[in-house]
Amino acid sequence: MEEGRENPEEKDFALVGTLYGIGVGPGDPELLTIKAARILREVPVIAVPTSYSDAGSLAMEVIAPILEERARAGRSPEIVSLLFPMTRDEGILRKAREENGALLLGALSRGDAAFVALGDILFYSTFGNLLTGLSSIRSPLPVEVVPGVTSFAAAAGRLVEPLVQGSERLAVLPAVYDPAEIEAVLDRFEVVVLMKINKVFGEVRDLLARKNLLDRSAFVAMVGRPEERISRTLDRLPPGAVPYMSLLVVRKNGWLTP
Amino acid sequence: MEEGRENPEEKDFALVGTLYGIGVGPGDPELLTIKAARILREVPVIAVPTSYSDAGSLAMEVIAPILEERARAGRSPEIVSLLFPMTRDEGILRKAREENGALLLGALSRGDAAFVALGDILFYSTFGNLLTGLSSIRSPLPVEVVPGVTSFAAAAGRLVEPLVQGSERLAVLPAVYDPAEIEAVLDRFEVVVLMKINKVFGEVRDLLARKNLLDRSAFVAMVGRPEERISRTLDRLPPGAVPYMSLLVVRKNGWLTP
Repeated sequence: MEEGRENPEEKDFALVGTLYGIGVGPGDPELLTIKAARILREVPVIAVPTSYSDAGSLAMEVIAPILEERARAGRSPEIVSLLFPMTRDEGILRKAREENGALLLGALSRGDAAFVALGDILFYSTFGNLLTGLSSIRSPLPVEVVPGVTSFAAAAGRLVEPLVQGSERLAVLPAVYDPAEIEAVLDRFEVVVLMKINKVFGEVRDLLARKNLLDRSAFVAMVGRPEERISRTLDRLPPGAVPYMSLLVVRKNGWLTP
Repeated sequence: MEEGRENPEEKDFALVGTLYGIGVGPGDPELLTIKAARILREVPVIAVPTSYSDAGSLAMEVIAPILEERARAGRSPEIVSLLFPMTRDEGILRKAREENGALLLGALSRGDAAFVALGDILFYSTFGNLLTGLSSIRSPLPVEVVPGVTSFAAAAGRLVEPLVQGSERLAVLPAVYDPAEIEAVLDRFEVVVLMKINKVFGEVRDLLARKNLLDRSAFVAMVGRPEERISRTLDRLPPGAVPYMSLLVVRKNGWLTP
């Protein structure tokens, strides 16, 4: 452990810092909020999730301009990687929670730390897992959240189409359901967003075709990034080309511009 | 009409500008995106919706620091108010659409214009109405959207609670439905956000009490503003105190911190 301003053992891990949960937006560095940018220019420690997806490294790419600016000023933050294993093994999950907790508490005993994730920080984000893991020691832990622009809002923006209007209802599904479940939601809601569609894309496309909703569905992948792809012709999308960071927007009331 | 760089009549209303739809976030000026701030510091015209709610003037308050900065530099933008009447009278609505369209096209014949709204610009926003009104002349109209932080993401942030995690499904309702409709959605979704809850607050609170969900519901009003109010004890909230800009978050899986 590096020499800090405080000795955690003497102080029984007295926390001098605040944990900031920061959503960095969907991918475009200009879609960071002013508050997120201000905090990320100042914090001594930036924590980033590592998982099977490359979401953590994408979040680091979004804040790369800030990291470069800090490096040029000789003020680079310490980068701490937190592991979120994709498993249901409770032993592995507990070990990861304990290790992440220890890393964060160590950082917070020396000063502020910011945890970054793509999109909004409380919307299907590993920060939720982190808070859950830390919840036993939550009361003495100062946490401040900086919300971010969600990928589905950015997707609607790139489509230049209202997402929801007036009395329309919105459902957001993480797309881990079977098509029957998705169909029941499509029957009830005017607007449905299916997140991280990659694993079920073929099945969902077949379902949308069966329900005559293909021309009311749009595919948006890696929104706001150089490799962004937008398609309103789902039937022509090669199945192998669906990355993890992709979503579908289904508007049963249709689009303004076909 | 003021003297512009182009003469609209000679050019048959040739549009030289881009219409920017800009979500300014839920209320805190620091939750503007970097992109929104950049554009709002530059555009010659800022258009703002006027309606029965004070949402338009709240959006102007969010960008007040930018407007003050521009005023000090002698570069104040022209402010254009667009009227969105709350009526179902198709004649009145058509007239408002035509007038808004004429005002915007006039501005765009001279340069860029930005339309601002609270939260995200395509999420229950008057910009959706505006795009619908302009859709007949959409193809030659350059529109760029700058998405914003939604009020429900900011609300989850102030609660410091995950909004949705893992396989949880989210439903967002504009709260114009009868309690039976809301109940059906509560039965199917783990997380339900009820927007603009003011008109139906009493009924919804009774419904949540009947379903034993009061301790899994949080009320957030005017999030990110000085008059922000947060309550997890809905039963103690006086009914008269529910402003237009208020929402409920119901998490059937409960909160991390009660």
